[in-house]
Amino acid sequence: MKKYQKEDLVSYTLGAFPSIELIKNRPQDVVVVYESSRYEHAHELTQLCNQHHVSLEINDKAIEKLSDKDNVFVIAVFRKFASPLSEGHHVVLVQPENMGNFGTIVRTVAGFGLKDIAVILPAIDVFDPKAVRASMGSLFHVNIQTFPSFEAYRQAFPKHALYPLMLQSATYLDEMSFPKVPSALVFGPEGNGLTDDFASLGTSVKIRQDASVDSFNLPIAVAVAVFEFTRQMR
Amino acid sequence: MKKYQKEDLVSYTLGAFPSIELIKNRPQDVVVVYESSRYEHAHELTQLCNQHHVSLEINDKAIEKLSDKDNVFVIAVFRKFASPLSEGHHVVLVQPENMGNFGTIVRTVAGFGLKDIAVILPAIDVFDPKAVRASMGSLFHVNIQTFPSFEAYRQAFPKHALYPLMLQSATYLDEMSFPKVPSALVFGPEGNGLTDDFASLGTSVKIRQDASVDSFNLPIAVAVAVFEFTRQMR
Repeated sequence: MKKYQKEDLVSYTLGAFPSIELIKNRPQDVVVVYESSRYEHAHELTQLCNQHHVSLEINDKAIEKLSDKDNVFVIAVFRKFASPLSEGHHVVLVQPENMGNFGTIVRTVAGFGLKDIAVILPAIDVFDPKAVRASMGSLFHVNIQTFPSFEAYRQAFPKHALYPLMLQSATYLDEMSFPKVPSALVFGPEGNGLTDDFASLGTSVKIRQDASVDSFNLPIAVAVAVFEFTRQMR
Repeated sequence: MKKYQKEDLVSYTLGAFPSIELIKNRPQDVVVVYESSRYEHAHELTQLCNQHHVSLEINDKAIEKLSDKDNVFVIAVFRKFASPLSEGHHVVLVQPENMGNFGTIVRTVAGFGLKDIAVILPAIDVFDPKAVRASMGSLFHVNIQTFPSFEAYRQAFPKHALYPLMLQSATYLDEMSFPKVPSALVFGPEGNGLTDDFASLGTSVKIRQDASVDSFNLPIAVAVAVFEFTRQMR
């Protein structure tokens, strides 16, 4: 076992919470679960692994090697999987740059009950252990599909109503009325946001903000937009 | 000049953006601005410092010593300041634990146009350079006051309507109707949220969330609650 690299066909969870989410939601993709000899809930973990036919090893060396923190007692190695988007509402992340942000966004989107996240390349590696960790295991509850370009995403889902979030938009989120049709909320990269050409795709939206602040950070913008969108969809 | 410690009477900004925010908003608290000899916008920075009567030094050693990243070209040393809360709406953070989260929350709250953040101790150091950095300089736009306990906050502001955000609340944020009176949105620490006794203070509120997800992270919860609250206050 060695530290994760982007080219690997497997990745791993760091910590009991995301490992349990993985075992419950995608047992077919688990290669092996490593448990520390110091783990306090060994009995429950053994039961869960037996129930889902997942192999479990007490292996302090593997845990020490893969983890960069002291408080990791469970690591689950899993095959990277493909999870194509459904025809429901989508969150589209154009070239996201930060693993921690990505994981937080996955957790937030799942929290608001949306199930489908498109990632437009080039982007961070969605299976990096840091992203898995920041998602608190919610990566295993949602569909995440990568596309080589926004055009490729659009070809795959030509009918979704598009809502690019842009600082230069004319329509405020809090004045929007979203029709109840399959929709895609589209967000640009952390540094520069979406390029101007997105303004002509669908209805661009902006979040009302005080002039004193440069912009909201990406997970915050996604959270607020998805909150308002899902509120209106109910 | 040495690395920041909590006991110090001064702190510093890391990077041009928050330094400029500091110089513009609280010039009276700036001790000195250090500039790298490689900084590209030296002319503009000199003008800004002159305009606000702030002393500027080209000092690569100080920058190297204080910064842990390579891309820092400006650092401004400032005296820690007290900024008592106004009688407007408040965000109250009970025992926040994470500097990065705190900075993100300050940036977000300022972005939604609120000006007053109460911090209930024990908590992270609000002036730590990491918090200043994560706030993107918005720390210099808002009032931040620390209180030894929630009771002490309540004594100082007995009339604010209290809205503790709690998972175990009966009222969903998206069904709340906030009366237009001075209000305080109250949030617990990252790990465990508010203790049960907050439920009897004011009207407790929860954010609707999918059962698959444990909870939203703190900056996300604050963002969504403040977005909805300020939407209703307009």
